[in-house]
Amino acid sequence: MRLTILLFDGFTALDIVGGYEVLANVPGMEVEFAATAEGVVAADSGRLGMIAYRRFDQLESTDILYVPGGPGVAAALENQPLLDCIRRLDAASQWTVSICNGAELLGAAGLLPGRRVTTNWFTRDKVAAYGALVEPSRFQRDGKLITGAGVSASVDAALFLTGLLAGEATARLIQLGIEYYPAPPFGNGTPDEQPDAAKAVIRSIEQSAAQRMAVRDIPF
Amino acid sequence: MRLTILLFDGFTALDIVGGYEVLANVPGMEVEFAATAEGVVAADSGRLGMIAYRRFDQLESTDILYVPGGPGVAAALENQPLLDCIRRLDAASQWTVSICNGAELLGAAGLLPGRRVTTNWFTRDKVAAYGALVEPSRFQRDGKLITGAGVSASVDAALFLTGLLAGEATARLIQLGIEYYPAPPFGNGTPDEQPDAAKAVIRSIEQSAAQRMAVRDIPF
Repeated sequence: MRLTILLFDGFTALDIVGGYEVLANVPGMEVEFAATAEGVVAADSGRLGMIAYRRFDQLESTDILYVPGGPGVAAALENQPLLDCIRRLDAASQWTVSICNGAELLGAAGLLPGRRVTTNWFTRDKVAAYGALVEPSRFQRDGKLITGAGVSASVDAALFLTGLLAGEATARLIQLGIEYYPAPPFGNGTPDEQPDAAKAVIRSIEQSAAQRMAVRDIPF
Repeated sequence: MRLTILLFDGFTALDIVGGYEVLANVPGMEVEFAATAEGVVAADSGRLGMIAYRRFDQLESTDILYVPGGPGVAAALENQPLLDCIRRLDAASQWTVSICNGAELLGAAGLLPGRRVTTNWFTRDKVAAYGALVEPSRFQRDGKLITGAGVSASVDAALFLTGLLAGEATARLIQLGIEYYPAPPFGNGTPDEQPDAAKAVIRSIEQSAAQRMAVRDIPF
C-alpha cells in the first residue's frame, strides 16, 4: 500500500509528521513525498526543510493521498499542478486525507461539495465556502475521505485511519510504538473553549504568516 | 533565543517535529538543524529526508540543545563529532533536551550520571546504565535538563519547557495554535499498562530497525 504525501512551501511540519509517523508504520506501507519539483521544500518556519523525491506530474495513482496544511496553503491554492495532482490521485485513491487547512486544497480541487469534513478551527468558513459540511470534530470520515483538524490532530486522524485499513490491533500497536498517551501539561481544552482574545492572537499570527509565505523567497 | 536540533541518519521524525512545532513558535526563537555534514539526513523510514544546513563542527554554542532519538541512535553512539557537539553545546546551553532514546546519546556524551531523566519505555535499562535515575514519566526536568519519553512525548515535553522559558500564557497560546487537544481514538494507556505480548512485538521491531540502520546505505 502506498502513502503519497504532498509538499508545498510553507507547509506545517506537524501536519505531515504526526500522520506520517503513524501511517508509515503500518506493515507493508510505502511512503513517498512529492512536490512541484524534486528537492527541498521549506516548512512555514523557513528553517525546516523536507525532501520531495517525486514531482506531482510523475504521480499517476496512489492508495492514500495525504494533503497537509499550513500558512503556505494560501499560495498553494494557485498552484495548478498541485490541484491537478490532487484531482488525479483522488480519482482512484482508496483513501484521501487532509489535515488542517489542507482541506482548502481539496476544496479548490473541487472535491468537497456536500462532503462532511473537519479542518482547523480558524479555517472553517473558508472550507465551508467550497460547499463542505464542516464539523468541529478532531477527525472526520465521509466515505473514503478522512479529514483532520489542525496540526497535532494529524496523529489522531491517522490512528483512526489505521484502525480502518489495518484493524484496531495494529493501530494500538503503532500507538504503543510512538508512545502516544498524551499528557498536555496545560490541559486539554478544545479551541472552541478558549478565550476569544487568545483565538484573536492566533488568527492574526496565522494571517500574517500566510501573507509572508505568499511573498517571500524561501531560503532553501 | 536559538534552538539547535541535531540530526543523524535513522532519527524518528516525530521525536523532532513534535518539539520543533511547539518551540519554533515561541516568539523570538531561531531554529537551526545540524548534522555531521550539510544536506539531507534520512529518517528511520528511509523515506523522509530532512535538511541540515549546519555541520556539528560549526556549532559553538546554543540556547536550547535538542537531541532526538530513533533506531539510528545505535549507530550514532559511535559518531564522535556528534557526541563532541553534544558535550560542547551542553556546556553553555540554557536548556538541554532529549526525546525518546536520544537520552542514550546524552549518556554516551557523559552527561547523565546522577541525573533524573525519562526516555522511551524500552530503553530505560540502557539509559540507567549511563548512571541516570530513570523515571517512567512522560517528561522530566532535572535542572536545565529536560527529557521526554518516546516519540509523541516530544509535544508534551516541549510545551512544558515553553512554560518554563516563556510562561504559561505563551505555552497555552502555542497549544491552541497547534490545536493540541489530543483525542486518541483507541484510548490513552501508558506503555506500562499494555499487554506484554504487544510490548514484545514493539521491542523486536525496534531491535531489527536499529540493526537495519547500522548496516544499510541510506538512499538519500
